[in-house]
Amino acid sequence: MLNVITREEAVRMVRALAQNRETATETIPTADALGRYLAAPVRAAEDVPGFDRTTVDGYAVLARDTYGASDAMPSQLDVIGEIAMGQAAGAIRSGQCFRISTGGMLPQGADAAVMVEHTDETQGLCLVYKAVSPGENITVRGADVRAGDIVLTPGARMTPASVGVLAALGIERVEVFRPCSAAVLSTGDELTRGAPAPGQIRDVNSDLLASSLSAMGCAADVFPALPDDRGAIRDAIRSAAETHDAVFVSGGSSAGMRDLTVSVLDELGEVLFHGLAMKPGKPTILGLLGGKPVFGLPGHPLAAYFVLRLVFAEYFRASYAVPPDAPFRVGKTAVNIPSNHGREEFCCATLAPDGSVAPIHTKSGIISVLTRSNCILRIPRESEGLPAGAETELYRLFL
Amino acid sequence: MLNVITREEAVRMVRALAQNRETATETIPTADALGRYLAAPVRAAEDVPGFDRTTVDGYAVLARDTYGASDAMPSQLDVIGEIAMGQAAGAIRSGQCFRISTGGMLPQGADAAVMVEHTDETQGLCLVYKAVSPGENITVRGADVRAGDIVLTPGARMTPASVGVLAALGIERVEVFRPCSAAVLSTGDELTRGAPAPGQIRDVNSDLLASSLSAMGCAADVFPALPDDRGAIRDAIRSAAETHDAVFVSGGSSAGMRDLTVSVLDELGEVLFHGLAMKPGKPTILGLLGGKPVFGLPGHPLAAYFVLRLVFAEYFRASYAVPPDAPFRVGKTAVNIPSNHGREEFCCATLAPDGSVAPIHTKSGIISVLTRSNCILRIPRESEGLPAGAETELYRLFL
Repeated sequence: MLNVITREEAVRMVRALAQNRETATETIPTADALGRYLAAPVRAAEDVPGFDRTTVDGYAVLARDTYGASDAMPSQLDVIGEIAMGQAAGAIRSGQCFRISTGGMLPQGADAAVMVEHTDETQGLCLVYKAVSPGENITVRGADVRAGDIVLTPGARMTPASVGVLAALGIERVEVFRPCSAAVLSTGDELTRGAPAPGQIRDVNSDLLASSLSAMGCAADVFPALPDDRGAIRDAIRSAAETHDAVFVSGGSSAGMRDLTVSVLDELGEVLFHGLAMKPGKPTILGLLGGKPVFGLPGHPLAAYFVLRLVFAEYFRASYAVPPDAPFRVGKTAVNIPSNHGREEFCCATLAPDGSVAPIHTKSGIISVLTRSNCILRIPRESEGLPAGAETELYRLFL
Repeated sequence: MLNVITREEAVRMVRALAQNRETATETIPTADALGRYLAAPVRAAEDVPGFDRTTVDGYAVLARDTYGASDAMPSQLDVIGEIAMGQAAGAIRSGQCFRISTGGMLPQGADAAVMVEHTDETQGLCLVYKAVSPGENITVRGADVRAGDIVLTPGARMTPASVGVLAALGIERVEVFRPCSAAVLSTGDELTRGAPAPGQIRDVNSDLLASSLSAMGCAADVFPALPDDRGAIRDAIRSAAETHDAVFVSGGSSAGMRDLTVSVLDELGEVLFHGLAMKPGKPTILGLLGGKPVFGLPGHPLAAYFVLRLVFAEYFRASYAVPPDAPFRVGKTAVNIPSNHGREEFCCATLAPDGSVAPIHTKSGIISVLTRSNCILRIPRESEGLPAGAETELYRLFL
């Protein structure tokens, strides 16, 4: 009998393991950090923008000089020069203005800009036909970011937008977590890398898990597939745990083989749980070996994928300071979804932009459904399925 | 005056340019293809599974031998052997069964499997307490994928799921598009790579655009920032267009400088449009030089980002056989969003899992808002803004 725990408990245990270990960090060029997870808060050392700027082409003015201006009664200002881009501006007094381009530095004393469309310039005089108020058509120093602001926090995954914000701040290097290393072991006498003979199947889990780990920012190493042999499995797990931060063992789908992985872990280290109250995913194992997690996954690729995605991914999320995952949205089921397993259930589904979501039913072991779906649909434990139109939580696939 | 076109027209023009060119392809190992775009359909050469398999631990049987079986009146079958994993199974006749593990190959003649929980075995006899119907607890050959099926189509971006499906099919190499190369040029006398002097700003667009392009699967090269000098801009555009599939020129935010980029393109090649009826994004330029697109982007980072994301990205999508982008979902606005520009408008926004979406209002030129938002909200051209609770289309940021 399996000592079955819930997904919530499993997630807590998995995250706790990660939080007991320190993930190594490295400092790398910001431009190379796309997809990496920040290991430290990033604080602005300067204001952005660093000076008051115009947001229009026109004239830098004192707003009060324009009050009451109209087509019939324009304000008249002396044009005392032009502000070149990238140059410090001078200063103006009441009655004066500078010609200025979008992004130009506001001269001392100016507190607004007039759009060129609302002016005429002739013989050193600028006629302003429309009043502006203080702050109009300008961005003040620090309006975007202030020196001392924390602009990005640990666990943030670097996106093009964050690369851009750090470029604005002149932050050329960032401290990020080093990718966790994971060994991926598949077991099963039926596995082959070549053309399958009758009864044999191709090894799906190795590439499926390795690419999922890679999409999460881990460095995955695929080990050669293992036969259902206690000695071979024990040696491979032991050696993988010495060289990697985490070890995945998938397969052993028959009852005897599951027991074998558990007994190997019992011998070498510790079994933290064996059996998950989740469908698919029941024959899941969490072990510990020399402080390293050993993740035992079901042999069925879809089940292995779901357990990695919804449970074991939390080890790496926690290692990278990322909060626990949550549904990315709530959908409305397009059809009745029966369920009577007494376990929390997940299935592949297709979500339409309007929020309606349809499950794709499959037998376990079916893998192609993953490429025809765009999310994972959750059926809660306490329910007896979901009626059409019910709200249901959706999780993302690995992308 | 700008000759302004709508975003829809711009997208059509941009995609047409890509469709007139052929994107180079290469054939690479499937395991390395994560994030790449398929250039050819992928067809299964074999059935998956390749044989009828059990999905449970138990006994392979003829379903009809179990009809009427119950606890009180079990069916009795001769156990004629055990099917080893990875081995071809023999055959059974009525009255016989094989012991079998999950994933084992069904023997000839068997059409169902009985779960071990519903049996007792003693002295070569299996007592079956529960009837099964034909097909029960088995997956038939080809149930997942049939030989000849197209499993992935051109333009599909390779995910961990697709890597897994191709592993199931033994497809070890795939034909993908080579990354398009893009040159990224920023212009502006005000730009500096070092600590900004008064009036100077850091070059944001180079890194922002390069990392956005990289997230899209392009190989971006950042050129040194250019002064607002006609000769320098002309030489850089000409040389970049010789060595790259596409050229981005951002900046020249002042009216004079915008005209300069347009006049350079007029001299060297052709200006296809100048001015986009989109806010932000008005000073956008599309040029053509020796058959290569030259994308003129606004100098404001946020505007440049929006135009790349919502318009020019379509060049690369089309090059990679990806259909035009569409909103990923409809949200309900949390507040009134005024707009009176007569142009289609976009702003950064935060979307909650329940679908409510709040815009983040900013002055143009503000960039940090990008890291505080999780989507782009659209305000249609024909509207005068959106009342609270209105449905609105949302686009993804670059990830």
